[in-house]
Amino acid sequence: MDFLVRIDTSRAYTLSAEDSKDLIERERVRGHQLMNEGVLRHFWRLPGKHANIGIWSVPDADALEETLNSLPVRPYAEIDVTPLATHPMTVEAMSPPS
Amino acid sequence: MDFLVRIDTSRAYTLSAEDSKDLIERERVRGHQLMNEGVLRHFWRLPGKHANIGIWSVPDADALEETLNSLPVRPYAEIDVTPLATHPMTVEAMSPPS
Amino acid sequence: MDFLVRIDTSRAYTLSAEDSKDLIERERVRGHQLMNEGVLRHFWRLPGKHANIGIWSVPDADALEETLNSLPVRPYAEIDVTPLATHPMTVEAMSPPS
Amino acid sequence: MDFLVRIDTSRAYTLSAEDSKDLIERERVRGHQLMNEGVLRHFWRLPGKHANIGIWSVPDADALEETLNSLPVRPYAEIDVTPLATHPMTVEAMSPPS
Amino acid sequence: MDFLVRIDTSRAYTLSAEDSKDLIERERVRGHQLMNEGVLRHFWRLPGKHANIGIWSVPDADALEETLNSLPVRPYAEIDVTPLATHPMTVEAMSPPS
Amino acid sequence: MDFLVRIDTSRAYTLSAEDSKDLIERERVRGHQLMNEGVLRHFWRLPGKHANIGIWSVPDADALEETLNSLPVRPYAEIDVTPLATHPMTVEAMSPPS
Amino acid sequence: MDFLVRIDTSRAYTLSAEDSKDLIERERVRGHQLMNEGVLRHFWRLPGKHANIGIWSVPDADALEETLNSLPVRPYAEIDVTPLATHPMTVEAMSPPS
Amino acid sequence: MDFLVRIDTSRAYTLSAEDSKDLIERERVRGHQLMNEGVLRHFWRLPGKHANIGIWSVPDADALEETLNSLPVRPYAEIDVTPLATHPMTVEAMSPPS
Amino acid sequence: MDFLVRIDTSRAYTLSAEDSKDLIERERVRGHQLMNEGVLRHFWRLPGKHANIGIWSVPDADALEETLNSLPVRPYAEIDVTPLATHPMTVEAMSPPS
Amino acid sequence: MDFLVRIDTSRAYTLSAEDSKDLIERERVRGHQLMNEGVLRHFWRLPGKHANIGIWSVPDADALEETLNSLPVRPYAEIDVTPLATHPMTVEAMSPPS
Repeated sequence: MDFLVRIDTSRAYTLSAEDSKDLIERERVRGHQLMNEGVLRHFWRLPGKHANIGIWSVPDADALEETLNSLPVRPYAEIDVTPLATHPMTVEAMSPPS
Repeated sequence: MDFLVRIDTSRAYTLSAEDSKDLIERERVRGHQLMNEGVLRHFWRLPGKHANIGIWSVPDADALEETLNSLPVRPYAEIDVTPLATHPMTVEAMSPPS
Repeated sequence: MDFLVRIDTSRAYTLSAEDSKDLIERERVRGHQLMNEGVLRHFWRLPGKHANIGIWSVPDADALEETLNSLPVRPYAEIDVTPLATHPMTVEAMSPPS
Repeated sequence: MDFLVRIDTSRAYTLSAEDSKDLIERERVRGHQLMNEGVLRHFWRLPGKHANIGIWSVPDADALEETLNSLPVRPYAEIDVTPLATHPMTVEAMSPPS
Repeated sequence: MDFLVRIDTSRAYTLSAEDSKDLIERERVRGHQLMNEGVLRHFWRLPGKHANIGIWSVPDADALEETLNSLPVRPYAEIDVTPLATHPMTVEAMSPPS
Repeated sequence: MDFLVRIDTSRAYTLSAEDSKDLIERERVRGHQLMNEGVLRHFWRLPGKHANIGIWSVPDADALEETLNSLPVRPYAEIDVTPLATHPMTVEAMSPPS
Repeated sequence: MDFLVRIDTSRAYTLSAEDSKDLIERERVRGHQLMNEGVLRHFWRLPGKHANIGIWSVPDADALEETLNSLPVRPYAEIDVTPLATHPMTVEAMSPPS
Repeated sequence: MDFLVRIDTSRAYTLSAEDSKDLIERERVRGHQLMNEGVLRHFWRLPGKHANIGIWSVPDADALEETLNSLPVRPYAEIDVTPLATHPMTVEAMSPPS
Repeated sequence: MDFLVRIDTSRAYTLSAEDSKDLIERERVRGHQLMNEGVLRHFWRLPGKHANIGIWSVPDADALEETLNSLPVRPYAEIDVTPLATHPMTVEAMSPPS
Repeated sequence: MDFLVRIDTSRAYTLSAEDSKDLIERERVRGHQLMNEGVLRHFWRLPGKHANIGIWSVPDADALEETLNSLPVRPYAEIDVTPLATHPMTVEAMSPPS
């Protein structure tokens, strides 16, 4: 199941330069793990914002919460979550013609 | 997986008396089916509103969308959906003491 | 009478690690008491949020206010309260067939 | 238990002059009944609005919903409900000095 | 003339325990004065909020502003004010039958 | 006592050309009466909007409601009302030096 | 050209008592200058708010910005600006009958 | 003086095909006049919206209101107006070096 | 360049059954064309809503507007557009290790 | 491609006088560079706000994000970005008559 997740990290900018650098590095490592695991399928920066928006693929809301809790930036993040349902046209497009 | 679902049926009040009566009866039947199937676990009226709020238990967002589409009132409904994650204290409360 | 109650505890994250750990433990104890008393009937985490949402069963608004005041997290919490009315279909479902 | 109830009847202005007159008269009669029963304790017009705001005293949300459903204007009304808890100073003010 | 006044005192919770206790006591005294003078006619706690809502009876907006300025909690309060007009049914209910 | 009153008449644009012309003329006449009586002290158009904003001077909210009800455009108007208190500097400016 | 200007000075309440007293005095002096110059034509307190609302008369937006920048309270103020157009009825009312 | 003006013409889509075609043509002619007169200095479509946003250069709010009233689409348009002040850097950029 | 596009088609539900069926079929055909062209890269249904959300890949805003205008559902759609910037981690993930 | 960009720098006012002066000077230099490069095509102050609004011309959202990141004020800025599409009338106006 996919979720549209918007993560605003404006508050992380109140950290000291050292703590901020450490946080960014740990977040980068965790992000690559999630991309490799197929959880973080697509994501983008929102221009002008201290925020990103992405498509997260997990079994359900419990798995999403667990995953978001594993982000080093979580304590500083404002997160908005939208559940997504498969669109019928996506299914058609992936089906072989009969 | 549980969802908090708010269904506002204000627009159904534009139907004729006959169509409205028919819709309510069909909605009542479908509602009892969903309660019996354990999908519609809890629900309430919002006092003063033409709306109800409920806890819907389904595997994922695709199943939720399919279920909401099966409601006779769907074409007239404004629906808001919030995904819910299990709270750790609920798990503790249901576990036998070690 | 049931209330839908949303409790956001974002501000508790400004506490020191020690104070925070103490608060969480006291909140956990109080939560289990309220579950055992049948007051806190159902509750969930909101994924991505520092917040939970639950169904609280109390005689009236005075009892709700008194209960919420008994929560250790109250001084740090943003709380939204929605009164709920019994849905006729819930009554039907709990009645024996005539 | 008291509720602050805001009732906006803007939509009733789409009725014909005759239907509107009939509705206003029936609403007036029902309003006086509720005042005599001590349910509708105080209420006011909101200047400039097609709306009133009042204090409704009922046992709980089920009784409130039942009462609001008894209003002739209900099908045309937008209603907002806020539960109220007794303020400690009100209790003090009504207590005899010890 | 009546006003519906909502007073949110969330910011007062940033005071020290001693200052807070002093403020609450001074506010309680001033509140009873205003109740005795017939200015603060009705008021309630909003469950879950650090806020109250009340009906204030004063000659006009100047008197209201002067009264609100006399509250010890004013510097810490977010206050919302709604002017109220007499409802015709209230007048009818207080009139002797002809 | 002064009120800031915003009157949006967008809905009047659904009238027929004849009804609209008649309404505008009656509104113009009533407006000049209120200006002559010192009730409608200042008012302006909001550029780009089908709305005006003005300063209305009346004894209290009951008088304001009665005045607004006397406007021919009332059934089609969305009206927002803000109570105003005298600013101390206005008083100083109107006082003779001691 | 007139502007409706709302100035909220809530943040000025974080100043020390001495700085606050100095700011209020300088603001009072500047306010009287602007009233004498015919710039600040009318203004009011918003009851319950740390804010005022006024009618400012200046040639254009550049002059308004320059004027607002001359206010001692500017660094602490939240300011909302609404441009106003002359209402035709105001013109009629100031014209001699033909 | 410049204004940022957003014009939403969604409601014009309720016109018949013929009326709509006529309106678009008249609007196009008026738009070119305003561009030639230097009033409509820049404007853009908002992708996905039935709306445009532009920079309008007029002496003051009265002239803006008169100009907007001259648009054939005015009765169907939702218009939002923001006054703009010259930025000091724009002045510097247009000044010859000293 | 990618855009997050939310398309709400609630208004299409006012069409007759026949017109609606025709519209859906034409929209389906156009959707598959855009998927094949790599414009409509991903999209989903929003459960409970008459709306979808998708990732559209086009050179710029002009191309997006032209594409959205080619949708049969455009006259009935409420469309919200958010520009997206490439996230540095996406670039890293697609780069071969050095 | 053009973007409408609103930059609110209210938070920069929490800097010390020295840091603020340095930031303003660096921002002024960077602003002139962007104007000379044709990126920052037009911009204005919003009267009463610590904010400006401008038209930024860049190839796409990636270039916009990179440009905004080059602003010294970025860490203190709240930025809102709206993509703009060319209006057909602008194209016509710049085309030679056939």
